[in-house]
Amino acid sequence: MKIKAIKSYFPILTWVADYQRDTLISDLLAAVIVTIMLIPQSLAYALLAGLPPEMGLYASMLPLVAYAIFGTSRTLSVGPVAVVSLMTASAIGHIAAPGSVSYIEAALLLALLSGMFLLGMGILRMGFLANFLSHPVIAGFITASGIIIAVSQLKHILGISASGENLFHLLTALLNEIANTNLYTLAVGLPVLAFLFWVRSGLKPLLMRFGLGDKAAGMLSKTGPVMGIIATSIAAYTFDLGQHGVKLVGDIPSGLPSLQIPSLDHSAWRELLVSAIFISVIGFVESVSVGHTLAAKRRQKITPNQELIGLGAANVAAAFSGGYPVTGGFARSVVNFDAGAVTPAAGIFTAVGIGLAALFFTPYLAYLPKATLAATIIVAVLSLVDFSILKKSWGYARSDFIAVSTTLLVTLLAGVESGVACGVFASLALHLYKTSTPHMAVVGEVPGTEHYRNVNRHKVITHSDILSLRIDESLYFANAGFIEDKIYELIEKNSAIRHVILMCTAVNEIDLSALDALESINQRLSDSEIKLHLSEVKGPVSDILLTTDFIKHLSGEIFLSHHLGVQKILAQNAKSEEGGTPNWTI
Amino acid sequence: MKIKAIKSYFPILTWVADYQRDTLISDLLAAVIVTIMLIPQSLAYALLAGLPPEMGLYASMLPLVAYAIFGTSRTLSVGPVAVVSLMTASAIGHIAAPGSVSYIEAALLLALLSGMFLLGMGILRMGFLANFLSHPVIAGFITASGIIIAVSQLKHILGISASGENLFHLLTALLNEIANTNLYTLAVGLPVLAFLFWVRSGLKPLLMRFGLGDKAAGMLSKTGPVMGIIATSIAAYTFDLGQHGVKLVGDIPSGLPSLQIPSLDHSAWRELLVSAIFISVIGFVESVSVGHTLAAKRRQKITPNQELIGLGAANVAAAFSGGYPVTGGFARSVVNFDAGAVTPAAGIFTAVGIGLAALFFTPYLAYLPKATLAATIIVAVLSLVDFSILKKSWGYARSDFIAVSTTLLVTLLAGVESGVACGVFASLALHLYKTSTPHMAVVGEVPGTEHYRNVNRHKVITHSDILSLRIDESLYFANAGFIEDKIYELIEKNSAIRHVILMCTAVNEIDLSALDALESINQRLSDSEIKLHLSEVKGPVSDILLTTDFIKHLSGEIFLSHHLGVQKILAQNAKSEEGGTPNWTI
Repeated sequence: MKIKAIKSYFPILTWVADYQRDTLISDLLAAVIVTIMLIPQSLAYALLAGLPPEMGLYASMLPLVAYAIFGTSRTLSVGPVAVVSLMTASAIGHIAAPGSVSYIEAALLLALLSGMFLLGMGILRMGFLANFLSHPVIAGFITASGIIIAVSQLKHILGISASGENLFHLLTALLNEIANTNLYTLAVGLPVLAFLFWVRSGLKPLLMRFGLGDKAAGMLSKTGPVMGIIATSIAAYTFDLGQHGVKLVGDIPSGLPSLQIPSLDHSAWRELLVSAIFISVIGFVESVSVGHTLAAKRRQKITPNQELIGLGAANVAAAFSGGYPVTGGFARSVVNFDAGAVTPAAGIFTAVGIGLAALFFTPYLAYLPKATLAATIIVAVLSLVDFSILKKSWGYARSDFIAVSTTLLVTLLAGVESGVACGVFASLALHLYKTSTPHMAVVGEVPGTEHYRNVNRHKVITHSDILSLRIDESLYFANAGFIEDKIYELIEKNSAIRHVILMCTAVNEIDLSALDALESINQRLSDSEIKLHLSEVKGPVSDILLTTDFIKHLSGEIFLSHHLGVQKILAQNAKSEEGGTPNWTI
Repeated sequence: MKIKAIKSYFPILTWVADYQRDTLISDLLAAVIVTIMLIPQSLAYALLAGLPPEMGLYASMLPLVAYAIFGTSRTLSVGPVAVVSLMTASAIGHIAAPGSVSYIEAALLLALLSGMFLLGMGILRMGFLANFLSHPVIAGFITASGIIIAVSQLKHILGISASGENLFHLLTALLNEIANTNLYTLAVGLPVLAFLFWVRSGLKPLLMRFGLGDKAAGMLSKTGPVMGIIATSIAAYTFDLGQHGVKLVGDIPSGLPSLQIPSLDHSAWRELLVSAIFISVIGFVESVSVGHTLAAKRRQKITPNQELIGLGAANVAAAFSGGYPVTGGFARSVVNFDAGAVTPAAGIFTAVGIGLAALFFTPYLAYLPKATLAATIIVAVLSLVDFSILKKSWGYARSDFIAVSTTLLVTLLAGVESGVACGVFASLALHLYKTSTPHMAVVGEVPGTEHYRNVNRHKVITHSDILSLRIDESLYFANAGFIEDKIYELIEKNSAIRHVILMCTAVNEIDLSALDALESINQRLSDSEIKLHLSEVKGPVSDILLTTDFIKHLSGEIFLSHHLGVQKILAQNAKSEEGGTPNWTI
């Protein structure tokens, strides 16, 4: 039992002991492919975050090892991702100037805060909180972030400078500067962009026509960005494009990152905390949804609370090794999975691959145009943009549509943190509003069964002196008054009523406010000589009701089933009328 | 129809046209009694709010007339009340020094903001928002406010100065100053306090022993505070107590308030807005609950959204006539009701009575000791203090107890606004948490019926290849993942299952996130050759489901009743087994 507990905190122990040679080969192969994909991504996302390119590489080393030790997904590929890089730029851009030392220090601090918050959530088992981000909110947020990221990178393609935190500012800045477009930069950026778009759909079929298998062709087509990098770097070197105003990556210090303790500046700490929480939650949700999807395909499981610890450890590792906030990336994890990764060892091998790149390949990156990296980002994030959720939610339910569109619009117009906050608020508020004005149905017996359904939707049997009312919600403070008013309204309409049976099939809770409401309903009905009954009260609810005085005051009964209740009342009526037949109509 | 719409905005039109002589006499009598009660209250609550006494009187004139025109309660007595006066002191104390002109201007502005907020809520029909203040939150808040108010008034009884916004600060300040107690003040304050406590329980029986009727004795006992005022004023005048350090009310300008437009200082406006919202909501909830209680006794009705307009108009009137925020008061409204008030005309007559007092009686109030007013407040608010809710909620449900105790403690330790905010947040968070981890029950057939109940609580019939699962909550984003995991868990435990029927009696909603979860449940069960069925899906839910692709993908069926579903599956099994008997156990 103790070993099991230790294993649950160190998932690496579940697979490392019986690690096989076959597995090693599979993992190594996947690691090679992911490394080739991750090098341009690391550089590009560091650019997006406004950080020097080597920080992207550093964020792709130790964090992967930390996740391999603590994470529960077998195939998740942790590292820099687009949305978190955007959020990092936005958070640290508020407290430091891009390019300054304090900007870099803020990024490290942000990773540390984010890691500690994730670890704390994991230890406190608060993973369930992520459930409060609904699918519409996530979909709206991802689409809006994709648009903002793509637009923010256009400046690199055009060779101008333009920045802004929301779409409106970004577009205005771009339009103001568009006359200054550097044609050499555009001559690099546009072809790469076109090439990468073509690679997405055209390269794989072409390779297959050259005789490659489906899988090999798919893998090879993921090297598109690397081909773009090699081609444009050579072009930049050959034609000395840097002299013509094409911005290049420039010298990247080669070697591994030095381990260091992030500087804990008190004021920065406080200013970054909220952003760190947003980044943690968004990163966690993105990562867990990828992890779930991949795990389900192989009948494996991931444990959300341990995932918090895995991602927390990864971010703390990033903070101590010159990186910036990381999480599990979607595209990369799918490639890792498809390339045959079996265990998190693939992640460790990938980290080694990136380490080798940092040691030996950085001199070759000096001539890499930033426009190439921007094109890589644009092509990657535009695949996130998906407006179909707007149509789908519109057709499904207005509340889901409002949640999507609120998140989408606020993210575009006011930034990522506001967008998520408003989206979550809107979806919770709509849910609460709906439960505060619940649906109620007068029900009757479906002929030939003991089943009771809405009189307005089904041909059912009712009795003039019995009001059978189904309340379609738990009774709690937000709807207690509403339900009380509705019951009085129904009774006022029909003076023949002598019995009210509340059918409690959907009543999962009765809180103290609602109990007070039931007490006054019972009192008021008693004054009018109407009996109040309850039927089909669930176990947990009746357990609580039985401890209260309400049960003593209740003028009627609590029936096991609605049908039994109606039968009993009819039998009593028949008896008191000395054989008179009950008055019923279909 | 048009006239009805106008009448709904001006409820005065519903009764003023056929106003009778009998009604006039009843209303006049009630007005006289309420006026006698309201004079000391107005002065005392103005003292509590840190405002000059005449502002209490001004707040008891025009606001009553405005409410009589726009309010829907026949007997509610609007004016200064304890809790709102405390909240006023706390709000304007932040931006101005008590006694300064800007303090008074802030009070007027607060009344204006509060009135406009209430009017806005009323016009937008947002009265339902008040339902989100649960009974436990209100109870905790009222008790804590009562304690804070009573303690805050002790300084007047002791003749010292001590202030503080929370209980801890107040008590510390009192202890620091207690050595400076003015014995003359104490000699006035203590006897009045004792007298007023005795009046509450002892005066009525005494009067009845002298032959007065129950009702007359009850009414007369409400004049206790006035007797206290007269007696202590005479004593202060006779013994020149002001010279011995007893603080007196002093000169009150006589005459009616001058109408004026509150000064709209921009920065004050912004600082007071949040407080104005809190005051509006708390005042509204207090007033509506009194209004409801009294209206129910006479089978009348109040309309919450029109009440917002009535109270909004009253507060705007207060702002324009030198008053401060007002609302419907509990004790005073009950007296008005018991004294026989029939229409809001009683309120208008009360306003006239207070006007006469302001014109002719203010010179007599100059010698009134502040200790007397403080004693009036203490006795009034201690009746609000009721700790029984703690015990009641503890015995009922932990979530209600947490809501009560959070509100109570935070109000005591951090002030009224924080207390209400934390209470509402806690009760909503607890409710959401509960719905995010819903109860689910495996159910079976109660023998001899078509009713299905929890296998753990009832002796029921189950079938080894059918999992009948009742989900006791609407399916929405916060619980979709939880429910999905639980279903997989149940299936893993039992490999004989071939059919899962989700009994949807408590499913009042399926949102887009939950629909996605159902899709993946259906997919995963299909992969394991298990059919997914739904039963007893409610009308509104099935209407939406029928528009989706989920219905097309669903491997099983949607059954009208759970029983019909089980029967159908058993019949199919029997057929496919060529007459084999179904495998069932009790």
